[in-house]
Amino acid sequence: MRVVVPFAASEPKTRLEGVLSPDERAEFADAVLTDVLAALAAAGRSPTVLSTAPLPERSVPVRVDERDLSTAVNAVLAEATEATAVVMADLALATPRAFERLFAADGDVVLAPGLGGGTNALVVRDAGFRVDYHGGSFADHRAIAAERGLATTVVDSFRLAVDVDERADLAEVLLHGEGTAAEWLRDRDFTLATADGRVTARRE
Amino acid sequence: MRVVVPFAASEPKTRLEGVLSPDERAEFADAVLTDVLAALAAAGRSPTVLSTAPLPERSVPVRVDERDLSTAVNAVLAEATEATAVVMADLALATPRAFERLFAADGDVVLAPGLGGGTNALVVRDAGFRVDYHGGSFADHRAIAAERGLATTVVDSFRLAVDVDERADLAEVLLHGEGTAAEWLRDRDFTLATADGRVTARRE
Repeated sequence: MRVVVPFAASEPKTRLEGVLSPDERAEFADAVLTDVLAALAAAGRSPTVLSTAPLPERSVPVRVDERDLSTAVNAVLAEATEATAVVMADLALATPRAFERLFAADGDVVLAPGLGGGTNALVVRDAGFRVDYHGGSFADHRAIAAERGLATTVVDSFRLAVDVDERADLAEVLLHGEGTAAEWLRDRDFTLATADGRVTARRE
Repeated sequence: MRVVVPFAASEPKTRLEGVLSPDERAEFADAVLTDVLAALAAAGRSPTVLSTAPLPERSVPVRVDERDLSTAVNAVLAEATEATAVVMADLALATPRAFERLFAADGDVVLAPGLGGGTNALVVRDAGFRVDYHGGSFADHRAIAAERGLATTVVDSFRLAVDVDERADLAEVLLHGEGTAAEWLRDRDFTLATADGRVTARRE
């Protein structure tokens, strides 16, 4: 199985701009990518990063495609000769075990939903499937698969459902993260605080 | 296995007060409870509702305990003669399959984390364990189990991680819910809208 990890190399994580400086956002996105790649490697996979710009310091293969996410991923799918997995680069809670469940699931198309209607990871085993990440992609991907008569499986994983977009997501990283991203946040004085029944991330 | 579903019968879902009227909040909480009980029944379980007040219209057994959540649950655990599962009443996305994974997991204590640091479901197989739902209960429950030398398993489930507390959670119900709660929201003119990359629930 080919595993591709799309990564937006320029101005990542803009929705964290009230919390982290531009340089910090880039560092944090890099730390999360490191964790995702490590979890994939521990699950026995050799991922390729599909980046919008070169990433000279990465030891894994990097394919550069400046086009928008859906176009770049569909170009990968169009040339696929085997099953292809597409895993978002901001899944800071992903573990080898969660990825193993994703890759082991049957189906022409396997979808791992993200919070807020996105598709955080998918496996494509049919040449007819194409992605559309614009808007609520989870519902769209189910519809695209159904239109083409493809069997779809949904993987029920909290660790694959949390992507790091907003301040509230940082609390999940501090609570459940096991890698460099959680460490990076702790090193920058982020701690957990309880407010109104939910735990939130606070910078001291 | 005994399965207990704590339910706050008075003034439920106060964090939805900007979105739903008090009567609507009570109706919605009732619809979600109906879905949770149906999913548990479909998973082969016979749950008891642990309610803060009588629920005359429920066909399942209701145990009334007016005390706070942790005290009421610990009273159940203290008298347990078999494994006991505690499942929150607001898990609007829970499916029979998700509950089956919870109940099948090994461990003296099995925890299903909720978004924001809570514990949305747990299974207790050791008489020494007690709950503490105040604050970030997931970390506390791990610590309590570790202090007592109990083996803890964490179930990785998106469907068990989403509890319906806030407006953002309503979008998840509309996107992924399969029961009366999703239908209830649609009947009250809630629809999905895409804003800033995430899908949100909007009332028309």
